[in-house]
Amino acid sequence: MRNGTVIFKTNYSVSAVKDSTALLYRNHGEPSQVVQLESLDLPQMGPESVLVKMLAAPINPSDLNMIQGTYAILPELPAVGGNEGVGQVMKVGDKVKTLKVGDWVIPRDAGIGTWRTAAVMKADDVVTVSKDIPVLSAATLGVNPCTAFRMLTDFEELKPGDTVIQNSANSGVGQAVIQIAASKGIQTINVVRDRPDLQQLSDRLTALGATHVITEETLRRPEMKELFKSCPRPKLALNGVGGKSATELLRHLQSGGSMVTYGGMAKQPVTVPVSALIFKDVKIRGFWVTQWKRDNKHDEDALRNMLDELCILIRAGKLSAPACTEVSLQDFRKALENAIKPYVSTKQVFVM
Amino acid sequence: MRNGTVIFKTNYSVSAVKDSTALLYRNHGEPSQVVQLESLDLPQMGPESVLVKMLAAPINPSDLNMIQGTYAILPELPAVGGNEGVGQVMKVGDKVKTLKVGDWVIPRDAGIGTWRTAAVMKADDVVTVSKDIPVLSAATLGVNPCTAFRMLTDFEELKPGDTVIQNSANSGVGQAVIQIAASKGIQTINVVRDRPDLQQLSDRLTALGATHVITEETLRRPEMKELFKSCPRPKLALNGVGGKSATELLRHLQSGGSMVTYGGMAKQPVTVPVSALIFKDVKIRGFWVTQWKRDNKHDEDALRNMLDELCILIRAGKLSAPACTEVSLQDFRKALENAIKPYVSTKQVFVM
Repeated sequence: MRNGTVIFKTNYSVSAVKDSTALLYRNHGEPSQVVQLESLDLPQMGPESVLVKMLAAPINPSDLNMIQGTYAILPELPAVGGNEGVGQVMKVGDKVKTLKVGDWVIPRDAGIGTWRTAAVMKADDVVTVSKDIPVLSAATLGVNPCTAFRMLTDFEELKPGDTVIQNSANSGVGQAVIQIAASKGIQTINVVRDRPDLQQLSDRLTALGATHVITEETLRRPEMKELFKSCPRPKLALNGVGGKSATELLRHLQSGGSMVTYGGMAKQPVTVPVSALIFKDVKIRGFWVTQWKRDNKHDEDALRNMLDELCILIRAGKLSAPACTEVSLQDFRKALENAIKPYVSTKQVFVM
Repeated sequence: MRNGTVIFKTNYSVSAVKDSTALLYRNHGEPSQVVQLESLDLPQMGPESVLVKMLAAPINPSDLNMIQGTYAILPELPAVGGNEGVGQVMKVGDKVKTLKVGDWVIPRDAGIGTWRTAAVMKADDVVTVSKDIPVLSAATLGVNPCTAFRMLTDFEELKPGDTVIQNSANSGVGQAVIQIAASKGIQTINVVRDRPDLQQLSDRLTALGATHVITEETLRRPEMKELFKSCPRPKLALNGVGGKSATELLRHLQSGGSMVTYGGMAKQPVTVPVSALIFKDVKIRGFWVTQWKRDNKHDEDALRNMLDELCILIRAGKLSAPACTEVSLQDFRKALENAIKPYVSTKQVFVM
């Protein structure tokens, strides 16, 4: 990756980009089995196209589900894997006004296929990001930080001092939630699964800005009452797990608060007591950043403003990329295997 | 009841109201065992009080839960049973400007104790209703039709031609939903439990304005697809049951739609697939008319406008009271037993 960055700060020759090496799959199945490294000819540039050299692209859980064929949206096959990443514009079509050579860009929508060295894309399918942030931050900006940002913004009006509770606090979204909330003076109660290195994890999340880090077991215990002597009951609960964990989050929500589900790691539904709906007026919602981007496709400012705000936090050192393992496209099989393993807490990121 | 109405259309002597006969309970427990008919002295009238002679008051499920001690709000004991009903103002305190002798009034909030012949109440605790509607309609206006009205108004913007799906369609709320929706040109898919007299029930609900009446079993079958050839997928699902029935309602909701839970007859929680929250953006909400009334206590127009709209429907023959069995306060034990029996589909209403 760092090599990649260096390459692009030198005078990379545009004419050198004639074909692309890509991680392609022709059938749905286990990612490490169906994905192949292939050489693809780049199509002709159209007047509204841009040639983008990819710099870095992570492996996200939804990428794997898409390859497995279990995700809510599936591309036509054969398809190039990956939905997130950052690239640099090498060439722009005659009619492209919004981008210039050298710009860093990230996809506007899922399905673009980011695990490749280069691609010809429609200018409208990408959006610029600031070049003065780390390339790993740019590569992982479009999904998790955007999910965290919107969930903290669109469901409850949160003021400094308010509390948010979340499970899966060590996930990419979870870490972004901690950091964005902390930057706004919002307290976070962060629920993680118990593990041998709990203290170390807790210290790491606390260093990111977590107010409290507790285990799923603690969440169920009466001592939670003690915790709520020092901070208000949460207005917002963020659920990436489902099942019992979600029901437990709900129990602690204040009357009229919202629980927003963005993931279902436990592969169990969200179960809501009728009394919580009727007498506590809890609101059970879901969030999918891909849908948000589609719904706001024609509102240029909505995405722009969010990315700008996130970049300000990144530059200020208040929002860091998750721990990443950088791998080359050639090492894709191992990377895909690692990405699918439970408890591997670093994100696999292809660097081109 | 009809006797009651007749009495109040004659010159009932105010001075005759000196005490009250009331259905009182001193302990929580089975309603037919803990409720007693007792004579209560009426307190002195204050300058902001009114003397109200009760005309009719229903037995609602929440009244029974309150007596059992299982409801979300419980009055101090001893307490007079009943939270809904209509009375006539017999006398007003010196400072009362909002009410006059002869007005019909209903409680603004739960907890007033309506199962009695007369009561001295604060003028602010009641609100007038039109006297040109049937007394049974007035007695049952404040809970179920208000619940139906708000659920059809506050969660999704419904236009003529839109569809609402509901379970428990034969309940008091369910019947009000059918009628209010029909008056606005909104289609309803009404789910009921299978029963021997299904056709009869279906005919009755259709006569009220139901677009479709189906059983819980049909709701799970593929033939539902046929139904959605003739009407759009529902924007709104109303759930008075919980458990599987609620999950089935959800399956048919259109993307971005809301399910509002107002009851939990099945005594099972609402279970929501994570994918419905994330990828279909369904919104899971609850509604409690008592909370709505408290939240809107200082917005005189909100309650007034709703009651006026409902009275217009009643006068136009578009909103009828549910099937009622009229009983005297003296026959309370039998009435309470009937009210708690499953499948007794008429509402027990005390007439004084």
